[in-house]
Amino acid sequence: AEVCRRIVAAPLFNQVIIGLIILNGVAVGLETSAWITERFGSMLHGINQLILAAFVVEALVKMAAHGNRPWRYFASGWNCFDFSIIALSLIPAAGPLATLARLVRVLRVLRLVSAFPELRLLVDTLLRSLPSMFHIALLMGIIFYIYGVAGYFLFHEIDPTHWRSLPIALLSLFRIVTFEDWTDIMYTAMEAMPWAWVYFVSFVVMGAFVMINLFIGVVLNNLEE
Amino acid sequence: AEVCRRIVAAPLFNQVIIGLIILNGVAVGLETSAWITERFGSMLHGINQLILAAFVVEALVKMAAHGNRPWRYFASGWNCFDFSIIALSLIPAAGPLATLARLVRVLRVLRLVSAFPELRLLVDTLLRSLPSMFHIALLMGIIFYIYGVAGYFLFHEIDPTHWRSLPIALLSLFRIVTFEDWTDIMYTAMEAMPWAWVYFVSFVVMGAFVMINLFIGVVLNNLEE
Amino acid sequence: AEVCRRIVAAPLFNQVIIGLIILNGVAVGLETSAWITERFGSMLHGINQLILAAFVVEALVKMAAHGNRPWRYFASGWNCFDFSIIALSLIPAAGPLATLARLVRVLRVLRLVSAFPELRLLVDTLLRSLPSMFHIALLMGIIFYIYGVAGYFLFHEIDPTHWRSLPIALLSLFRIVTFEDWTDIMYTAMEAMPWAWVYFVSFVVMGAFVMINLFIGVVLNNLEE
Amino acid sequence: AEVCRRIVAAPLFNQVIIGLIILNGVAVGLETSAWITERFGSMLHGINQLILAAFVVEALVKMAAHGNRPWRYFASGWNCFDFSIIALSLIPAAGPLATLARLVRVLRVLRLVSAFPELRLLVDTLLRSLPSMFHIALLMGIIFYIYGVAGYFLFHEIDPTHWRSLPIALLSLFRIVTFEDWTDIMYTAMEAMPWAWVYFVSFVVMGAFVMINLFIGVVLNNLEE
Ligand code: NA
Ligand code: NA
Repeated sequence: AEVCRRIVAAPLFNQVIIGLIILNGVAVGLETSAWITERFGSMLHGINQLILAAFVVEALVKMAAHGNRPWRYFASGWNCFDFSIIALSLIPAAGPLATLARLVRVLRVLRLVSAFPELRLLVDTLLRSLPSMFHIALLMGIIFYIYGVAGYFLFHEIDPTHWRSLPIALLSLFRIVTFEDWTDIMYTAMEAMPWAWVYFVSFVVMGAFVMINLFIGVVLNNLEE
Repeated sequence: AEVCRRIVAAPLFNQVIIGLIILNGVAVGLETSAWITERFGSMLHGINQLILAAFVVEALVKMAAHGNRPWRYFASGWNCFDFSIIALSLIPAAGPLATLARLVRVLRVLRLVSAFPELRLLVDTLLRSLPSMFHIALLMGIIFYIYGVAGYFLFHEIDPTHWRSLPIALLSLFRIVTFEDWTDIMYTAMEAMPWAWVYFVSFVVMGAFVMINLFIGVVLNNLEE
Repeated sequence: AEVCRRIVAAPLFNQVIIGLIILNGVAVGLETSAWITERFGSMLHGINQLILAAFVVEALVKMAAHGNRPWRYFASGWNCFDFSIIALSLIPAAGPLATLARLVRVLRVLRLVSAFPELRLLVDTLLRSLPSMFHIALLMGIIFYIYGVAGYFLFHEIDPTHWRSLPIALLSLFRIVTFEDWTDIMYTAMEAMPWAWVYFVSFVVMGAFVMINLFIGVVLNNLEE
Repeated sequence: AEVCRRIVAAPLFNQVIIGLIILNGVAVGLETSAWITERFGSMLHGINQLILAAFVVEALVKMAAHGNRPWRYFASGWNCFDFSIIALSLIPAAGPLATLARLVRVLRVLRLVSAFPELRLLVDTLLRSLPSMFHIALLMGIIFYIYGVAGYFLFHEIDPTHWRSLPIALLSLFRIVTFEDWTDIMYTAMEAMPWAWVYFVSFVVMGAFVMINLFIGVVLNNLEE
């Protein structure tokens, strides 16, 4: 345990881990090239296996560093995060879950965030600003739900592409809130219901207003600290 | 009256109301599925009638809680808000106003805002920032009106789709202020009037400038408090 | 002169002027309806003549209020603004400048800004924030000019629609800075020059970065006051 | 050396340089007109040669001003900037690098920034805010890389236009982050994979959230100074 603790505390240990994560990222990036996969596919597969083994060893060493209370490894949220990515990596790369296994390999690049203390701090800060957004997000959710259900009832026969079901209606509302071609949806609805602009303009104005206030709230929250 | 006041003050009372509103929201959401409406349509209708009855009882209890001065119920803006939604719910669901009745049923989800004290506070804050926007909104309105009328006179023959009448011209200007495919409208106008870009670029710049200042004003206003 | 000064100082004087401007705005708005122009065209024309006469009288009274130094009327920027709009209104409504005369009639609605003290204050504030933007606007201008000329040389043969001349290239860059369908222009250029994305992505990033800093500068400037 | 130092310190020296840069900008702007290039092409070429010669002389004078330690000229970043633009200008205008030579001639307009002390200060300020963005840009880079590789694996067969290789996938993600027609890419992917919206909506939300926090960070950073 004492040896493990020293290993974990050594700067070299973290640097090796960062190196392995970057190597993993490069390897998975190279796999996007058909030319390279053909020639070096098996080598990339070997690298991948090695990195996975190294990550498992890393997790075990970190647990061992806690001596006879290895469960304290899970006291840190970032360790849980690392552990779940490693656990997901044990999905067999072949078989029905092949695509999922490949996505998990990509996701391992996210371990860079937990390996760099500065990024860990940054993400902690970002996450800590989430609770202050809770109520305004709830309000936004209620507005989305009301406009979504109302949009389905009003337009699902006129424009099934955008309003054929509640989930699709909510997706269309999310699109409208990013101002993305929202007038196309409005013009289609206005052909059959000339007053449809009331629905769209009110949603755009309300969405922009609540979003701006969400933004101001976050700014003021950070300023207070 | 004393009994009613105790009922209203009990935490359980508000929790039951919140539960009923959520049940109402789920019921109206399920109605967007044709499969469910076919099978459970009459059950959903029954639930809807029950919720409406519960809301009427709630309003009466709250009025009774004010003893022999029930009109003091209307002293709170949020009570007025609740009352008007309940009053609108009494529109018969069948007949010519069927669509309106259904929309009111969706709108009842908005009562969640008045039921959660935190959301009520949030909306109060949002509404209180509106007066500080009044003058800049008035200025924006004048700019919209001038550009709208000028746009009608300049382009209504060239591009009737976007400028055929004053309301449609104002809608197109609103679209331009969200940057949504504004160049499509400009290119159409420029084909006949090569100098039309002056109109559009000046409106985009002025609109963005006033919007940014509106935004800054709200931020500074909130900072002062 | 003393009488004129009293007239100008009377609250009723300004209220009558505001009433006339609003009447002018309503009249010019009604002219957008063909149905109304047919029936009440001559009446609207008469109203317009009356309002113009009233505005001329207003300017004369305000000048007379300065006694034997009427040129002091022009010491106020807002008076100059009013005067130039009234002077432009004297363009004959018939003949080759008919469209211009009509636009000036629309522009008279802008006098509302000078008539309401609150709006006058707001616009003064907005204009006072312009000098602090001067240097960043100059920088933005240099970037636009360089990208405009470079864009002309690189793409005017590939995509003449968006790059056929320097003014059109600058207009396309303005469009790109509002994020409006900028990828369409990029994809067209990339078909012939696969490296064209460097030009577009660098411009979007630089434009957004300078715009954000322009915005921050204005916020900080207002905060200091 | 003493003479050179006096020349460099004289206000006229800088004003002449600014005049030459503006002349260079006007000349390169006039070259975008075919009509002018035909008639005055050789004159513009002569002006260009003269300006280049003047710039070389300027750099030599500035170096000479440092007496027997001319390398101290390069101690200032802005001098290095000027020098590299002048050095690039020596590329022969004819031959295989003709387009590059013309772009460098356009780029010389950027010397205006180093010639105006106010613009130099502004760009220094902008550049000084870059390091505070480093970590959030790194985080954004990791997110882009993960979504880029994942996007390639998920969609490169369904929609090769936007996901055919890793660089094109990253370009599409940059496009999505500017909200530019992002739903078009999503709808294409959703036709084959109905769950593709999870990928796009999560990226849009995360991208917007990180961008807003990047923006807040810059504001707070500037406020502290
Ligand atoms: Na857009
Ligand atoms: Na768009």
